[in-house]
Amino acid sequence: MNFTKKINLLVFLLSVSAFAQIDKIEPPFWYAGMHNPELQIMFYGKNIAQYEASVSNNVVIKNVVKTENPNYIFITIDTKNIPASDFVFSFKNKNKVAFTKKYTLKARRKNSAQRKSFDSSDLIYLIMPDRFANGNPNNDTDKSLNEKADRSLPGGRHGGDIEGIIKHLDYLEELGVTAIWSTPLCEDNDKVHSYHTYGQSDVYKIDPRYGTNEEYVRLSAELKKRNMKLIKDYVTNHWGAEHWMYKDLPTYDWIHQFPGFSQSNYRMTTQFDTNAAAIDAKNCMDGWFVPSMPDLNQSNPLVLNYLIQNAIWWIEYADLDGFRVDTYSYNDKIGIAKWTKAITDEYPYFNIVGEVWMHDQAQMSYWQKDSPISAIQSYNSYLPSVMDFTLHDAFGNVFNEDKATWNDGMIKVYDNFANDFLYPNVNNLLTFVENHDTGRFNHIYKNDFRKYQMAMALIATVRGIPQIYYGSEIGMAGDKGKGDADIRQDFPGGWTGDKNNAFTKAGRTEEQAKFFDFSSKLFQWRKGKSVIHSGKMTHYIPEDNVYVYFRYNDNETVMVIINNAAQPKTFKTARFQENIKDFTSGKDVLTGKSINVKEDISIEEKSVLILELK
Amino acid sequence: MNFTKKINLLVFLLSVSAFAQIDKIEPPFWYAGMHNPELQIMFYGKNIAQYEASVSNNVVIKNVVKTENPNYIFITIDTKNIPASDFVFSFKNKNKVAFTKKYTLKARRKNSAQRKSFDSSDLIYLIMPDRFANGNPNNDTDKSLNEKADRSLPGGRHGGDIEGIIKHLDYLEELGVTAIWSTPLCEDNDKVHSYHTYGQSDVYKIDPRYGTNEEYVRLSAELKKRNMKLIKDYVTNHWGAEHWMYKDLPTYDWIHQFPGFSQSNYRMTTQFDTNAAAIDAKNCMDGWFVPSMPDLNQSNPLVLNYLIQNAIWWIEYADLDGFRVDTYSYNDKIGIAKWTKAITDEYPYFNIVGEVWMHDQAQMSYWQKDSPISAIQSYNSYLPSVMDFTLHDAFGNVFNEDKATWNDGMIKVYDNFANDFLYPNVNNLLTFVENHDTGRFNHIYKNDFRKYQMAMALIATVRGIPQIYYGSEIGMAGDKGKGDADIRQDFPGGWTGDKNNAFTKAGRTEEQAKFFDFSSKLFQWRKGKSVIHSGKMTHYIPEDNVYVYFRYNDNETVMVIINNAAQPKTFKTARFQENIKDFTSGKDVLTGKSINVKEDISIEEKSVLILELK
Repeated sequence: MNFTKKINLLVFLLSVSAFAQIDKIEPPFWYAGMHNPELQIMFYGKNIAQYEASVSNNVVIKNVVKTENPNYIFITIDTKNIPASDFVFSFKNKNKVAFTKKYTLKARRKNSAQRKSFDSSDLIYLIMPDRFANGNPNNDTDKSLNEKADRSLPGGRHGGDIEGIIKHLDYLEELGVTAIWSTPLCEDNDKVHSYHTYGQSDVYKIDPRYGTNEEYVRLSAELKKRNMKLIKDYVTNHWGAEHWMYKDLPTYDWIHQFPGFSQSNYRMTTQFDTNAAAIDAKNCMDGWFVPSMPDLNQSNPLVLNYLIQNAIWWIEYADLDGFRVDTYSYNDKIGIAKWTKAITDEYPYFNIVGEVWMHDQAQMSYWQKDSPISAIQSYNSYLPSVMDFTLHDAFGNVFNEDKATWNDGMIKVYDNFANDFLYPNVNNLLTFVENHDTGRFNHIYKNDFRKYQMAMALIATVRGIPQIYYGSEIGMAGDKGKGDADIRQDFPGGWTGDKNNAFTKAGRTEEQAKFFDFSSKLFQWRKGKSVIHSGKMTHYIPEDNVYVYFRYNDNETVMVIINNAAQPKTFKTARFQENIKDFTSGKDVLTGKSINVKEDISIEEKSVLILELK
Repeated sequence: MNFTKKINLLVFLLSVSAFAQIDKIEPPFWYAGMHNPELQIMFYGKNIAQYEASVSNNVVIKNVVKTENPNYIFITIDTKNIPASDFVFSFKNKNKVAFTKKYTLKARRKNSAQRKSFDSSDLIYLIMPDRFANGNPNNDTDKSLNEKADRSLPGGRHGGDIEGIIKHLDYLEELGVTAIWSTPLCEDNDKVHSYHTYGQSDVYKIDPRYGTNEEYVRLSAELKKRNMKLIKDYVTNHWGAEHWMYKDLPTYDWIHQFPGFSQSNYRMTTQFDTNAAAIDAKNCMDGWFVPSMPDLNQSNPLVLNYLIQNAIWWIEYADLDGFRVDTYSYNDKIGIAKWTKAITDEYPYFNIVGEVWMHDQAQMSYWQKDSPISAIQSYNSYLPSVMDFTLHDAFGNVFNEDKATWNDGMIKVYDNFANDFLYPNVNNLLTFVENHDTGRFNHIYKNDFRKYQMAMALIATVRGIPQIYYGSEIGMAGDKGKGDADIRQDFPGGWTGDKNNAFTKAGRTEEQAKFFDFSSKLFQWRKGKSVIHSGKMTHYIPEDNVYVYFRYNDNETVMVIINNAAQPKTFKTARFQENIKDFTSGKDVLTGKSINVKEDISIEEKSVLILELK
């Protein structure tokens, strides 16, 4: 044995003698009988890559991937025909078992694959959980996590949690809500602003300040008892800089490296613009959203698979009813389509709505599954639902436009629906007047109740899936111009000691009650109206700032009239004959009064009539 | 014979004894060897429908249509295999020939069917002939027509004519023009404002105040001698209320009747909006543009055929190189597609650009032939070219936006091209900064020469067919806010006695020469640049209000830099490496100076560099 060989042996002995342990196994468990039988399990532990793995129970290992980081090993097994059971991974060194690890395939819920999802029959309520209700004051601060509770900081953690949501399901049900979209709940260990939780540090674990994984499952179960649905906010594009894996990357290209941070140019048109420079398209897709959010590289199959499995794991584990996907169009375009398809291959009726924040219907349609627009480029995102951001754009000023011109007034809303033919599925567009990233409607319109009524009536009666934002139903406002925290204030009554408790009838101010009672009446009515959920639409060119449209099916017709003018209006109805047909009267959903639709109709200024035709 | 029978006989005798004469035969002659052998000839004369027609030379009559108006008869003959020749129509009553009429099939020009047309290698010059040059003062007024010349009236007839255009072809050639689009030249007998000539009263006859049919043919021939092209402005949507046929309609439904006038709602989205009320779509399409323009009903096969044949007749007769079609998207949607297809079936390479004045690329694309957008609805307009109105929209303010923001500055121009993928053929888009219906560029930008340079450089170097508007090349301005006449002023030098003659180098003011010399240099350069006519484009997200794009093919690369900021800029070129490749220097087309493109490039404020890379 020469000197070199001696040294080699020494290095070898030192390395095998290093204490081998497994710090993470992800997914931590899995389910038997999945459509895709392949499961890629990531084992993470110091120098784990030096071991050879084998499995008990005749489970077949189809593939083993080791990366440049010896602390990771990715083992793909075939779960086909394996029943729900435990089996054991053995890790050997020189044919000697160094250690073993149990792995479990659990049984799926009945009809899990065929689960229904949210759809146009729903009303989605968007919650920022840190700001909604503090159900468990004991979890406000977690000593293992950086940011501690401090309600005095607008951008700090205020203590809202899953328990707080569960405690107010009665309230939401009374309002007419049928589905909850909560912003992310997984652990976000950022030092500041972790309350928004889009910079996640562990995507298999609910942030302890919101609760536990088990509590999240309980939320889902409590919702199901009420026929309500749970939509998880999934972030495929990035993790937080505190993510444990970012601190010990499996591969250099696990994230987009420039090296390290480079900011996205945010110009999403580069994803389809045939004139775009390649470097601009790359910088949009691969650039980071902000420096604190390492941008995931979905073109790396290990990353892609990690994200697919994590998503599926949550659906199974927490019995989910849908995803909202953050910054959808900033993802790797090919990768995100594979992610989306993998999930909908597993759950054919699962709905996923992507945040595609663009201002042109053709561009938004591009991202919806089976779009005729993306078909031009033979691209299919497989994303079932996108958000109707152009409708949101119209809502930004239309109700202040008292006078109609060629371009101003209700024509803006009309024009949005005029492009519906560009979408492959308009019933699966998310309609909203605001969300957690936009100005609050009640701030923009100075809490003008009439304008609130017109806006809510619109999203409650046009095609698509209406989404409202917590607190607006009791008149909450907030100025985006002052920063995000202002549009994400605490819901009054969510904290012990709150003087105003808007969650209860008794606790609401007169003003809050006015907003709530109207909203509740409207949305409760919508719940049972299949003509609204899936009926056809006919709309008429607004005249004099009055917009009239109909929703109809073989059984029912609803006529909606919105007068956005500052004066009362009276108009003839002969023009609407193709929809009024033989109906003679319309019962106003909001007041219960009936009016003759064969004669002139009068409507107050800045108001809405929703008429069930008889 | 009872009394009733006696009366019937009397009526019969009175009607046959009425003097029968033919006032009009349209088309007045036709051509042998057309692709479509069917020719429907309209005979017009008092009570002509009572006669039975026959034809000499074994010509086969395929169909005879009589309408509720006895003054018309439409006879369809089969021209297949009939050589260029004269034949005779005989009109009989009770088997006795009452009168005869000669009809001629002429020989076509060689390769007439295969004629080339205007395309992206051209520069189109838009002329309003009444306002360009008065070549023949003797035809300014025609005693048979209502409106007399009066140059003191802004909206009156000023005397410009075809002879005036012919006399200034040298000027246009020097400017770099290769094609002329003149607004309509057929007779318009309106009492006022006939100078714009969109309310035609006889579509087979050049308005005598512009010249004769023969002079129009001479214009075409003179252009051909110079390798220049003639584009006719065709109006399918309406005629003028003084049209002879409107005064004695062949059928009640020859025009859209409500009865008579009803104004279009102009909401062209109703033509594809799947939510649109049928009545709104009908009112858009069938409503009249203005009360003085009866709206033609192209869904009536007689009308449609009349318009098809009239269009084809002009192509053959005047040896045309293209059509511009007025108010294209206001026409009957199905009818206009048939019209367009009939013409391009006859002339496969004939270009037709339609006025589709919309503000959304998907909506504009809808009207271009083989559009993926209209394919959603299985509609095909067959229209080869549309106008790039969204680019025009961007030109409306971009050059005043000295500071770039997310939405302001050169990003507006960039964003226009980002949607190019929505069009089936971007090289066949008409690009323009203004036309006879819009504000004049030099008014909007207060004759700022630098802004004019940026705009002209853009349309001279991006994809599409550039179109300029008479007079802007010498700095003419005009305020649309003051009315149409202000943007349609007389070209200085077009009238005997004009103190300023901008048609000649000697006659131009210093300011006019500055505009002209720049324009001429730019457009002369463009003439020979196939890389501009048909090269690919790569553009880069504007930074700091500086927009950089490249046009390239296998042989050449042109780099265009537009600095819209109010300050000079210096920027690095590494970002453009995918287009700069191994090129090291760029020769500025406008100054002839070379600059190093591997190092920083400096550019003056509000200016443009067009660099041929070497």
